[in-house]
Parts: sequence; structure tokens; C-alpha cells
Amino acid sequence: MSEPAPLTDLEIARRATLRPITEIAEAVGIPAEALELYGSYKAKIDPAKLGAGFEEPRGQVVLVTAMSPTPAGEGKSTLTVGLADALAKAGHKTMVAIREPSLGPILGMKGGATGGGYSQVLPMDDINLHFTGDFHAITSANNALMALVDNHIYQGNALGIDPRRLTFRRVLDMNDRALRQVVIGLGGPTQGVPREAGFDITVASEVMAVFCLASGPADLKARLSRITVGYTYDRQPVTVADLGVQGALAMLLKDAIKPNLVQTIAGTPAFVHGGPFANIAHGCNSLLATQTARRLADVVVTEAGFGSDLGAEKFMDIKARVGGFAPSAIVVLATIRSLKMHGGIPKDQLKEPNLEAVQAGIANLERHVDNAAKFGLTPVVAINKFTSDSPEELDWVLDWCRQKGVEAAVADVWGQGGGGTGGDALAAKVAQVLQQQQSFSPLYDLDLTVEKKIETIAQQIYGADHVEFTGPARKRLAEIEANGWGKLPVCMAKTQYSFTDDPSVLGAPSGFTITVRDLIPKTGAGFIVALTGDVMTMPGLPKEPAAGRMDVDDDGVITGLF
Amino acid sequence: MSEPAPLTDLEIARRATLRPITEIAEAVGIPAEALELYGSYKAKIDPAKLGAGFEEPRGQVVLVTAMSPTPAGEGKSTLTVGLADALAKAGHKTMVAIREPSLGPILGMKGGATGGGYSQVLPMDDINLHFTGDFHAITSANNALMALVDNHIYQGNALGIDPRRLTFRRVLDMNDRALRQVVIGLGGPTQGVPREAGFDITVASEVMAVFCLASGPADLKARLSRITVGYTYDRQPVTVADLGVQGALAMLLKDAIKPNLVQTIAGTPAFVHGGPFANIAHGCNSLLATQTARRLADVVVTEAGFGSDLGAEKFMDIKARVGGFAPSAIVVLATIRSLKMHGGIPKDQLKEPNLEAVQAGIANLERHVDNAAKFGLTPVVAINKFTSDSPEELDWVLDWCRQKGVEAAVADVWGQGGGGTGGDALAAKVAQVLQQQQSFSPLYDLDLTVEKKIETIAQQIYGADHVEFTGPARKRLAEIEANGWGKLPVCMAKTQYSFTDDPSVLGAPSGFTITVRDLIPKTGAGFIVALTGDVMTMPGLPKEPAAGRMDVDDDGVITGLF
Repeated sequence: MSEPAPLTDLEIARRATLRPITEIAEAVGIPAEALELYGSYKAKIDPAKLGAGFEEPRGQVVLVTAMSPTPAGEGKSTLTVGLADALAKAGHKTMVAIREPSLGPILGMKGGATGGGYSQVLPMDDINLHFTGDFHAITSANNALMALVDNHIYQGNALGIDPRRLTFRRVLDMNDRALRQVVIGLGGPTQGVPREAGFDITVASEVMAVFCLASGPADLKARLSRITVGYTYDRQPVTVADLGVQGALAMLLKDAIKPNLVQTIAGTPAFVHGGPFANIAHGCNSLLATQTARRLADVVVTEAGFGSDLGAEKFMDIKARVGGFAPSAIVVLATIRSLKMHGGIPKDQLKEPNLEAVQAGIANLERHVDNAAKFGLTPVVAINKFTSDSPEELDWVLDWCRQKGVEAAVADVWGQGGGGTGGDALAAKVAQVLQQQQSFSPLYDLDLTVEKKIETIAQQIYGADHVEFTGPARKRLAEIEANGWGKLPVCMAKTQYSFTDDPSVLGAPSGFTITVRDLIPKTGAGFIVALTGDVMTMPGLPKEPAAGRMDVDDDGVITGLF
Repeated sequence: MSEPAPLTDLEIARRATLRPITEIAEAVGIPAEALELYGSYKAKIDPAKLGAGFEEPRGQVVLVTAMSPTPAGEGKSTLTVGLADALAKAGHKTMVAIREPSLGPILGMKGGATGGGYSQVLPMDDINLHFTGDFHAITSANNALMALVDNHIYQGNALGIDPRRLTFRRVLDMNDRALRQVVIGLGGPTQGVPREAGFDITVASEVMAVFCLASGPADLKARLSRITVGYTYDRQPVTVADLGVQGALAMLLKDAIKPNLVQTIAGTPAFVHGGPFANIAHGCNSLLATQTARRLADVVVTEAGFGSDLGAEKFMDIKARVGGFAPSAIVVLATIRSLKMHGGIPKDQLKEPNLEAVQAGIANLERHVDNAAKFGLTPVVAINKFTSDSPEELDWVLDWCRQKGVEAAVADVWGQGGGGTGGDALAAKVAQVLQQQQSFSPLYDLDLTVEKKIETIAQQIYGADHVEFTGPARKRLAEIEANGWGKLPVCMAKTQYSFTDDPSVLGAPSGFTITVRDLIPKTGAGFIVALTGDVMTMPGLPKEPAAGRMDVDDDGVITGLF
């Protein structure tokens, strides 16, 4: 942006003039009977009631991914929103589809997660807090399942569930370090059966992943019924169907599963729905939101978590495959500060101009750009502008892209908005790609063994030489094949900061080995999670949590959400 | 009812024709700007936006209480709804104010909790499931506080909190026996600080009690800031204000605190808002809902949990005192089956006619009726009709009331509805009392010591001879006085099945001792809980949970909600 924005995201959001959500819905063609209002500016849409003209998903999908991010984040949601606004401004019937924010990190250090600057979805405070209650419903369904499992064991354990082999955990939408490892069921025979257990954050729940891959209510229930909660003393998997409670869980999710309609600052309709982790899950908004947006709009701009090695790979190999659609364009977000970091500059010096570091870091971006071709897609590089970027640095990256033959544009959607001029150049490049024929295909065939699928991802996407499976992982591979789960796609749980499994190895390393230390079959979601390195499924709060700065006045006006 | 109703509550609810909630709101005079829609049939009301003519709470309050209940429940919500419908039908501008159901027991064995038969609040399935998300927001606020407390200890414990003396617990809106007693913070130095802990059900959270006693947003934050979470190594209380997070907690509750407007089957406007336990908390809907209803209507029919010894006593001594209002009538619900049970008949024989048992059990009802006078109020007995009641039994109770000089009526609001003829006789009696001058006063003066307040309740309301305090309770009494909390009212945690602290002692016992085994200062809610006997704050699931019978079809239609 040319000038530092003088306002916080929350202040910008509050000054925006929102249109009633009924108008937003009407403009995109949603009939009143498909609309369930949550106040004046939020609504749930029932896809079953869209009516004539909206039967088939036909809109083109633009996926926004990124180079390997810095810990501060690179503004991917901001770019996604801004690009959609710019495409809408250019005359395309466009919708946004992004993830819902998780409350836990908001109270910790992250602040809001609904875009930023002049590219936000609104009302940002509602969306960042409880929104329409989807994550609460998912938390309830997850924890109802675990209460029913522990009760089954307590009431005689007819299924013979081994309490030491439960793989499903309780969840809270909270950063609560103290709940990572716990012992439950203490207090004697009337209080339960003691066992080791733990809590994850809600976005890590398999119910969240199921929710985000379900094609509709019937598929939701079918996927819920296939969730494996653990194993019997005979090492047989125990599913939700064995417990017979998929109906109750689906009931708890019956409203949550309907996509949430809101608007961007520029008035573009946006679905904000679902939000699984991008490490132990697939990291994108609900399939139902994406497909419903494709029924309503010509272009759907969506995002996937972290870089192309994580979210985008899973978008292609899991979500697009499950949904049976082909993405039409892939935008690779880069930032000058991220390039510098991959060029070896420490976190606290990223704001100082340093062309050499940018040049050294370009290798990271290059591998992410090259990954697009692995799926048969033409990439567009978007340099997401920050106030500290120098013209020399920006020009050099644009020039590098030109020489590589990759379309690229600088986007200042944070400072200028996509409804302003901040996304025009990028939108023009993307619109050009949308005219071209693409030849999408997933990276690997489902008929490969799980081992081979993991090797394919590690070698072709990460640039690894080799994958090593630990002893426990080898044992698990055998169990997975024996249980008939070998045809499922793979969901890699890897650090987002590196192509390797070591977050400190930046740039575009080669000649490395990826170590798979364990595998978790998520039979409801329908993928096998491969764990590399340590994966945090329950974050902690920092020394000075953001919660300490938050407040609401007597009129309901919030401060500190930023 | 004359004939057994051929339909379940859910079927009756589904066949009812709902009016748009905008019409319900308009009829009672709520301006559009005070209305936040949640779909077509639910809305939150912002009391700050009611506008001219609705400044002052002026409506008369009718409290529905009951004789000591049976484990099956006596239909108090049903009677409350039906009585309101009958008063509305008779031309009174009437509103209902009742509690929101808790999800945990619904998945266990209770089914719905929104009235029954032809006296229900609608849409019953939504209200019974996530409704407008209030309980989820309360759960989030409660658990955010605990995550912040454990994080404070982990990050250096500047306040010197003794992890062994934390009195605040995490909550879930779930019946989850295995979480009653747990050890958290396991896994080594990076995972937290190990300590004993536990989870309660959300309705037992002090945040729920605070929520239900707050007069508005400012008072909510002030009460939150006064919550005691535990004690330092020096035995000094640690409050939310010490942690500085009351702003964040109030922010999480900013929408939840607005009362929820729905309608009865007969179209009477109803606030369904808040729902604290009636043992370790005060057991009635939010003060804000009651007071907002009093600004809108001439008569507000509300209920309090369990019998007059629990919910009603707390309604008078805590809620009405905090709210600064005087109830105008008190309805004491009796059932033939409950009278039989107090007359010594076992649970499985309550459906057989047995006049002698009814006569033997009348002593229980009598003490509840006499309790009304202790608060300066004229009681009306409502016999809530069940299909198994014989005319002889009903006539004998009416006759007994007549001889005692107490107004009484049989109500068949379950079978006939209050909008039909089922509540006419009762409404007429209540309307008569509403014309009379009452001389309400709380039972005890706040200046009495906590010990003396407890003795007053036990002797005057329960009929006890004596209160015994255990050693730990005596120690706690001294701490409470030393901390300056001695002027707070008392909240008795006692079994609902008996006037004594032993659930097996039925009827109207005398010459007994109440044992107080511990006291819990709830400094945010603003009362001292006195624990007698064992109080269950986290229910368990039964051997065959109701969840196993629940389902939802592809169109979102629920079955098995009860």
C-alpha cells in the first residue's frame, strides 16, 4: 500500500456500510425461501432450496495458495477477498468461499481472521466471535460422541472397546495447553473408567473434516457413521456406526451444515463456512459452500491453508477429487518479507530493504509456482504488498516472473481494496487464465499404496529424495491395508514453514528425507493422516494473551479484536 | 386430559402453525430496530432499543413453583406456558419467561424441555438443540477463563495462584461422567502444570448464574470481574478482575445476553433465556428476560426450578431482591402422582388410583402452600392433570384446598392447551389474586450472618429443627466473613425430592437436621452456595442414551428428540 493505513481492521470494518444480507442474496439470485437470517447481515443458505437455474455447480474455481509462510502470515484471506472484489468489479459474477475463524487463536495472539485492511468479510466482529454457531455445533457433536463412547465403556463395554486404544479425542474451540494430555474418569467406580485422554482444538476434530467434505446432509451422516473412534481389545476398528449414534450427531449438525452468507467490504457475496486445520486435516472451507457458490456464481475465489505443499496439494488431491470438480486457476501468493525470510534474514529485520535476500529467497517461491504445473494448472503469482516493500524489490520479483514465463502482479488489496484499484492488475491476469483451457488432474492415483502416495507427494511436491517410515508407522501402514483403507487419499501433517519436516530449513532444500512417524486413519473424513515431525493439535496461549486487551462497552461495541 | 394425546410433543409442535416472529414482536410492541432475527421464528431482543413507552418494568410477575417433584418431573414448564396462554386468551397482555434447555440431558434421557403436549414454546427442536447459541457462548466464556487461569500459572504465576485451591472448573453442555474428576497439564514442562481439575455441566457454571442475574451489559461485566476463581498460596481470593479478562468474557457474551423471543403454540410471546441449575445456582431464567418482559407485558408468567423449597425460595430471596421487584402471585403445582409418591407409593405404581395415598401425601403439598405466606404471597394450587388421575382423587384435592382456604384449580394445559380450555379455571383464579394487594418481602435480612440465613431457610421453609455445619463448613464460614462476603444471600444446594437433605425422606418430615458440609462463595453471581448432601454438577448418561434413538432425515426433519 502507498500509505500506512491509519485505521485498524476493526475500525475499517466498522466504518464500512453494509448492505442488508437479503439484498446481497437477491443480487446473486438466492430465493427468499433458501435464506435463514441471523440478524441483518448474516444468513444461512439451504442449498436444497436454491431452485431453478441453480441446479448444477458450474462456476470456475480460483484457488489462492501461497509460498511457505512466515509465522506472521502472508495475508492469504485478504488476497482472496480482494481478488474476488476486483473480479466482481471487472464484471464477473463472483463469490468468495473461505474458512470460518477459530475462536481459540483469536483470544491468544492472532486477532481476527477475516481478511484485513480494505479486503475483509463483514461483519468481522460477529464472524470472529461465535458467528452462526457452526464451530460450537461441531464441538458439541465431537464431544457428544466421546461422552457416548466413555459411557459405553462405563456401562459394560459390550463392544469390547480398549480404553487404551481410543484414537478420537474431545475438543474445545480454545487454546488450552493444560488439556493436551489428561487423565479422565477418576474418582472411583461411580465416576467412570480411568484412562489417558486429551483435548484438541475444534478445527482439528475429524467431525470438522467430515463436515467440510460432505456433499450434503445424507453424505454427512454417512461420513459420520464411518468415523473410527478406536479399537477393540481384538484390535478391530470401532466406528460411530457400531455405536449407532450417527443420527444424533447429524442432528446436532443439521443447521451448521448450511453455508453462511456474508459480504465483503465491497459488497461481494461470500460464503464463510467450515475451517479444518491444514496440517492434520485438509485446510479449506466446506465443499458444500464451494459447490453452492459454483451453483450461484461464474467465478468462485477460494483459499487453502498454508503453502502449495499443504493446503493446495490437499485441495487438489482430496477436496477437488471428492467434489468431482477441476480448479480453473491457481494464484500463488508471495510477499517480499517471506522471500527475505527464505533468503536467510531473521524475523526482526524483514522490514528493511534487502534485495539480495529477496533474490536468495526466490527459490522457495519457484518451487511453489512449479507445483501448480504438477496438477496441470497455470499459476499466477500475486505479490501481496506490504508498506515496507521497496519498489526495487517488487520490480525484481515481477521481472523474475516475466523471465520465468509466469504471469504476475502486485496486489494492494489491503491498502486500496479489491473494490478500489488494489486488485485490478491481478484480476486481469486471473481473468486471462480463466479463458485458457486447463488440464487438471490430481497428483496421484488412489490405487497406489498409502506408502507410494506419500512418496509421490514428498518427492514431487516437497522435493524430497526419500521417505522414511518409523517402526510404528510401518506397523500402522500394514493395519491400514489390512482394514481395507489403503485406497484413501493421504493428508500430510507437516510444518508449514518448510518443504521439509523441519521448520528451520527454509528456501528450497533438496536431498532431504521426510520422516513419517505415525499414521492416523480418518475413515469418516476419508483420508489417512501421515504425521511428520510434531504436530500441534491444541495450541497454547502466549504470555500476554490478546484476551487481556479485549473489551466491549455497554452498547456492545468491541475493542481489541483488532 | 380427557383422552390420551395420540401425538408426541415433537409431532404436536411440528403440526402447529407458527407466526413469523416479526409479527409476534410487533403485536407486543417491540420496534423493528430492537429485533435481531435468527431465522423466521426466533429473535434476540436488544432491551436498550425498546424505545418510548417501554422504559420501566411494570408488569405483574406470576411465579410457578411446585410441590416436591418425582424423578419424572411434574410438567412445570408445561403449566407455565399453558397458564400464560390462558391469561392471554382471557385478555391480559401476557408474556412467558422460562429457561433454555440444556443439551446434555436431552441426549441422555430427558428428551425436550420446552413444555409438552399443547403447551409448548416453539420451534421446539431449535430451542432444544443449539437455539441462538447462548449456552455455547457461556461455555466459551467459562472455558476461556480457565484456559487463561492455567496459562497464567504456566507463564510464571505472577499472582501466586495455588493450583490446589482453584475452585472454578471447566464446563461442557454435555452429560459426561468421565470428566467429573480429571488430572490436567500432564506431559512435561512444555504442556502445562499438572493439577487436579474437573468439568461441570454448563448450567452449573457461575458464568451462567452471573448471566442470569445481570441487569444489563455493564452489570454483567461487573459481576464477571467479581468471580473468584481460587486462592493464592497466601489464601487470598483471586478474581477475574485480578486477571484483567472481564472485558474479553463480556465480549464473548455480548449477543448471548439479549433475551430470545419465541412463541407458544397459542401464539403468546415468550422469552426463553438462560438456565442455571436450581441446586448450586438459583434456577430461573435471566433477570434481563423477566425485566424486559415486564416492560412489554402486563403479566409475566415465569417459573423457578424444583419445589418451593429450592427455586421459589431463591426466586424470592435472590432474583426478586436483586431485581428490586415484588412477585404478584405464586402458583404451586401439584400432581396426583407426586402426592401418591409422597404418600408412600413406589414409582412404578403411581398410575393406579389410590385415594389413601393421595391423602397421605397431601402434607407435602401443604408445606409448599404454606411457604408462599412466608413471603407475603397468596398461593394458588394448580393440579396439573395426567391421564391416569381419577376424578375422585382430583375432587378430594380440590376439596382439601377449599377447606384450607386456598384457591385451587385443575389444569389440563397438556391435553387441551391454555389457548384451548385447559387453563381457563386456573387463569381465572390467578387473575383474581392479581387484583389483590400482596405484601411481598424476602424471607431473611441480608445483614444476618450466613449461618443465621441458612438456619432461617432450613427452619422456616424446610421445617428443620436444626442446622449442623461440618468442620470444613465452619472453617469456610469464617473465611467468608473474613473476606467480607457475609452480606451475600444464600443459595441452598439440596436434593429436590425431600424437604430434608436425604432424597428418600418424602412427605412433610419434621424434627430433622440439615447438614451443611461445605460452602462455595460465588462472588460474581453474588451468593454463597451451601452444600447439603451430594450435589451432582456433571450428570452421566444412562445405559441406553436417548441419543441412540435420535435421527435427522435429508430434509432436516428430526425424530427421537423425545
